[in-house]
Amino acid sequence: MATKQLAKWAVNLAPTSLPSTVTRAAERSLYNYIGCAIGGTHHPTVTKAWNALRPFSGELEQALRFGTPYKINAQLACLLNGIASHVHDYDDTHLATIIHPTGPVASACLAWAEYADKPITGPELLTAIVAGIETSCKLGLSVWPKHYDIGWHITSTTGSIGAAVAVGKLRNLSETQMMHAIGLAAVQVNGLRAMFGSDTKSFHIGQAAQAGFNAAVLAGGDFTSSGEALEARRGWGNVVAGGGEVKLDKYIAELGQVWEVERNAFKPFPCGIVAHPAIDGCIQLHKETGRGKRTIETIRKVHVKVHPLVLELTGNKKPKDGLEGKFSVYHGCAVGLMFGKAGPAQYTDEIVTSEEVRRLRNKCVMKSDHKLRPDEAIIEIIFQQASKLEKHVEHAVGSLEVPMTNEQLEEKFRDQCKPVLLNRTREISDLSWSIGQAPNVLDILQKMRGRTLARDRDFK
Amino acid sequence: MATKQLAKWAVNLAPTSLPSTVTRAAERSLYNYIGCAIGGTHHPTVTKAWNALRPFSGELEQALRFGTPYKINAQLACLLNGIASHVHDYDDTHLATIIHPTGPVASACLAWAEYADKPITGPELLTAIVAGIETSCKLGLSVWPKHYDIGWHITSTTGSIGAAVAVGKLRNLSETQMMHAIGLAAVQVNGLRAMFGSDTKSFHIGQAAQAGFNAAVLAGGDFTSSGEALEARRGWGNVVAGGGEVKLDKYIAELGQVWEVERNAFKPFPCGIVAHPAIDGCIQLHKETGRGKRTIETIRKVHVKVHPLVLELTGNKKPKDGLEGKFSVYHGCAVGLMFGKAGPAQYTDEIVTSEEVRRLRNKCVMKSDHKLRPDEAIIEIIFQQASKLEKHVEHAVGSLEVPMTNEQLEEKFRDQCKPVLLNRTREISDLSWSIGQAPNVLDILQKMRGRTLARDRDFK
Repeated sequence: MATKQLAKWAVNLAPTSLPSTVTRAAERSLYNYIGCAIGGTHHPTVTKAWNALRPFSGELEQALRFGTPYKINAQLACLLNGIASHVHDYDDTHLATIIHPTGPVASACLAWAEYADKPITGPELLTAIVAGIETSCKLGLSVWPKHYDIGWHITSTTGSIGAAVAVGKLRNLSETQMMHAIGLAAVQVNGLRAMFGSDTKSFHIGQAAQAGFNAAVLAGGDFTSSGEALEARRGWGNVVAGGGEVKLDKYIAELGQVWEVERNAFKPFPCGIVAHPAIDGCIQLHKETGRGKRTIETIRKVHVKVHPLVLELTGNKKPKDGLEGKFSVYHGCAVGLMFGKAGPAQYTDEIVTSEEVRRLRNKCVMKSDHKLRPDEAIIEIIFQQASKLEKHVEHAVGSLEVPMTNEQLEEKFRDQCKPVLLNRTREISDLSWSIGQAPNVLDILQKMRGRTLARDRDFK
Repeated sequence: MATKQLAKWAVNLAPTSLPSTVTRAAERSLYNYIGCAIGGTHHPTVTKAWNALRPFSGELEQALRFGTPYKINAQLACLLNGIASHVHDYDDTHLATIIHPTGPVASACLAWAEYADKPITGPELLTAIVAGIETSCKLGLSVWPKHYDIGWHITSTTGSIGAAVAVGKLRNLSETQMMHAIGLAAVQVNGLRAMFGSDTKSFHIGQAAQAGFNAAVLAGGDFTSSGEALEARRGWGNVVAGGGEVKLDKYIAELGQVWEVERNAFKPFPCGIVAHPAIDGCIQLHKETGRGKRTIETIRKVHVKVHPLVLELTGNKKPKDGLEGKFSVYHGCAVGLMFGKAGPAQYTDEIVTSEEVRRLRNKCVMKSDHKLRPDEAIIEIIFQQASKLEKHVEHAVGSLEVPMTNEQLEEKFRDQCKPVLLNRTREISDLSWSIGQAPNVLDILQKMRGRTLARDRDFK
């Protein structure tokens, strides 16, 4: 019954049935997504995909490629925007499953919203995105943790189904068609963890968006699948759970009761999430020490106590470039103390290899402490005159306990998008916030398109 | 090492390295594929997919849609030709894994051959198809039987990788690029057995073709994946084997030593393969009884002994339409005796519901016999005057022991394609045989296109 129940719930979900906290969470997820998709648009992984697949796109102008003023084939927009939103590992995280839920869902929804021949309102769009995110996360919870442990990239394996449900809502599928859409997406199981570290990792997210988009399009044409795609003996749950328990009934029953989108978190720093508490503390200390260069020079040692996972995953003491910097808690702490920031600009090759940063990194001494929680850190700075300054971060910024504020999300948006949008960053940021209330989403997307710079013909 | 070894073997496979028996087997597989793809082209499943996805195809004219005179978007040609080749369950079968190997591989290869800007010879095409079929079948053997048992549709889950390798060869990928193509296809695991009985079952095959095509295209653009996509701890083998043993090393080592394409069989009858020995015997008896209606009328009983699986899978005594007829060994025997044939024309709703056929079906008495092999059957006809006629089929036609002759393949091609091609059937059949020796495959495809009827504008 899981497939039917999910389809029924999704078809009946209306903007008015969303609690205001859910609407707010969806708006923030969408806003964060657009920043990530714009911020990633010039990444070589996206460019390679565009160049390779463009000959099959028919030069159609159906949906916006974020961060460019160009509309492209809607299927390819799903793929490229999906890749771009994930390629900097800066997207959202549903902490209970480590699914990055908005990428597949929003990439597919926004492409459909622009392609569709009928106006879609902001609240309708948000409702579809909520339906998609709830679908992905509930399905992820149903097969967690074995599904991820054995090697599936859970964001994309659940994301295709979330995207199908979301587009299915925008497309006004009947309950039966929605079941078929779920089935068509469920058979397209994309994403293996073995690909982490390669272009294919981000491809998973784009492919999930496109698979979900196509599933909803086919189901809208009465293409049939199974009515028990999720729960059948040889259906999605049993096949992908890797022998672990399949808890579809439990989590499908929670739909509309426990909202997963409210448990979606945003990364303040574009690096491994385990390092965030230490970095957060260092940024706070930067402010408290008066932000001055002189203060930095008088630091003798920085003692940092962290959860053991931090050194296991981000213990690189001598990162050699921007990418390695993302896996170095030493680097995160150093730039936090030095600049009071750990945004994309602090993870460039130039900053990671700078002599000044290197010197400060070398003063950091990390210590694993089993008594700390993963989102906790204790930092102690020892100055040359033996004076000390201490900071205890109980919950890192970006955790569910200390969520990023809207202002912090805006700062993140600016930091990511400025290299792409230059002086149009503020305009596009404002437009991105406004989508959820728009009478017609298309108007906003058209404005975003019109106000985006054509910086480089390579991106057309 | 499996990924690297497979890539290396595939890149280095040359037309001259194929034993002539392998070339022959590939030619027959390709010929049979084209017949199936043409025969399925007007099926509603294909039409629904075409109508739904056409708006994203950009009206490009890149690759032939078999059975029509139209070229369409190459990606969509992969999908539609793949669906069409499988939709009548009449495609080839690698008996050791029940993979239908040619559908995904040939759909992708032929689309690429036509899209490519450099001429491809028939022997090059056959070599690519062999590389693809060997890839799919060796990978299938590596995870057999658990992979299929738990619910994966093994034709498409292995077919995307086979298609990627085959197109990768036509595209002249380097060894490194080929590894990336394998990885990009390996992360797209399509097809669940829960979908059997719906449109989505055939979608799997088309989707596998398209996934493989795109994987090769992306890898050709230096899009990267893992160099250990198949054998990594969280790579394809371990993730999809369902907890069963992963025998990649064993089967990859056999590449070029044991040729799976030689173990590929063709179905003489468009119905469940287990029923074939009984049907084969009935057709032989039709010929021996003088093919006359009078003889049929004098039949009192038909006693058929079969392997127990036959009644388990095709035991429907009272099929109500063409589709149910395919799962009725009673119907297969009746039409075999009555018409001396069990082709598509004998599985129409009209024939299945005809009073004459129904009467003869009712005279058939099936008996399971554990002592018989699955490809064996014993038929005894008892006539009104108590005379008897017996036939012992040791191996059914279409088995590896009694493979279909080229003439039988041609009859199958004609039976499938005549409703689509009418009086052009012979021409297209001859052209299909000739592809493997063509100096330029494109010339043949163009001729096939020119000589195909534009019967219905709906198919454009």
